[in-house]
Amino acid sequence: MSEFKPPRPGEVSIPLPAAFDAGLYYIGFIRTPWKTRAECPKNSGERPDVLARIEIDPVYGAGLKDIGLFSHLIALYWLDEARRDLILQVPSHLEEPRGVFALRSPVRPNPIGLSVVELVAVDGLTLTIRNIDCRDGTPLIDLKPYFASIDSVPQARRPDRRG
Amino acid sequence: MSEFKPPRPGEVSIPLPAAFDAGLYYIGFIRTPWKTRAECPKNSGERPDVLARIEIDPVYGAGLKDIGLFSHLIALYWLDEARRDLILQVPSHLEEPRGVFALRSPVRPNPIGLSVVELVAVDGLTLTIRNIDCRDGTPLIDLKPYFASIDSVPQARRPDRRG
Repeated sequence: MSEFKPPRPGEVSIPLPAAFDAGLYYIGFIRTPWKTRAECPKNSGERPDVLARIEIDPVYGAGLKDIGLFSHLIALYWLDEARRDLILQVPSHLEEPRGVFALRSPVRPNPIGLSVVELVAVDGLTLTIRNIDCRDGTPLIDLKPYFASIDSVPQARRPDRRG
Repeated sequence: MSEFKPPRPGEVSIPLPAAFDAGLYYIGFIRTPWKTRAECPKNSGERPDVLARIEIDPVYGAGLKDIGLFSHLIALYWLDEARRDLILQVPSHLEEPRGVFALRSPVRPNPIGLSVVELVAVDGLTLTIRNIDCRDGTPLIDLKPYFASIDSVPQARRPDRRG
């Protein structure tokens, strides 16, 4: 893990299990203008002006049938450059350590990124989308249709001060 | 795969890659009243009267710090009994095959389930939640705070007729 920066004061790492419990296939890749993690926006809503693309692996292409019926999708992707062992983290906007499951940090035991994206266009194996925050070349692991009836909770509460 | 039912007419399976691209850790388990897949509700909003629990593995317990600040969470779980190769599926409410990425079916190349759950209570390593649809004992792979600002899209469109 020599490529990782050392934890900040207050951050805590844990020893991860010796073996994985399940395995993932990459089903495609996400193409964005951001070539490094440092260039990426802080969240998926920060750059609604930017169009990105999802390129599905031909093996899984048939799975796109009828996807254009939906205006929004949930994209799940694999943050393959993230360390996985920081269980308490100190984000730059907070002064105290917070548990990883109370953060949307890319650093987590299973570094799955999630964005609710607007589907702008479908062309063969390529989807044009809006509202994503990941590095160019990020592997895609799932796409689901967004159902407002179960996925939209406008009244959900979160801490007031940039939490 | 002898435990799987044969595909329905119109359903198409694909050969999956020989190797996985990435690995997951189970970080806990979800406890629900539904002991088999057949008993589970059709979606996470169907049984708002039912309370379920998430039990976090002690290894990851510190990651729950401050989770009670949020009213809703996104739970990602691993549908470990689902086949992964059906790229076109005919759900019972449709007559035509639809691509897996336009369905919320548990059967998908990476069988990740997603529910937006209400966080009712936190007690040590146990979270009491509402709005989940999975089998008792389903492995948990991630928990994220729900941010209405980026995750809630009330105007998202889907097909009219139960699509």
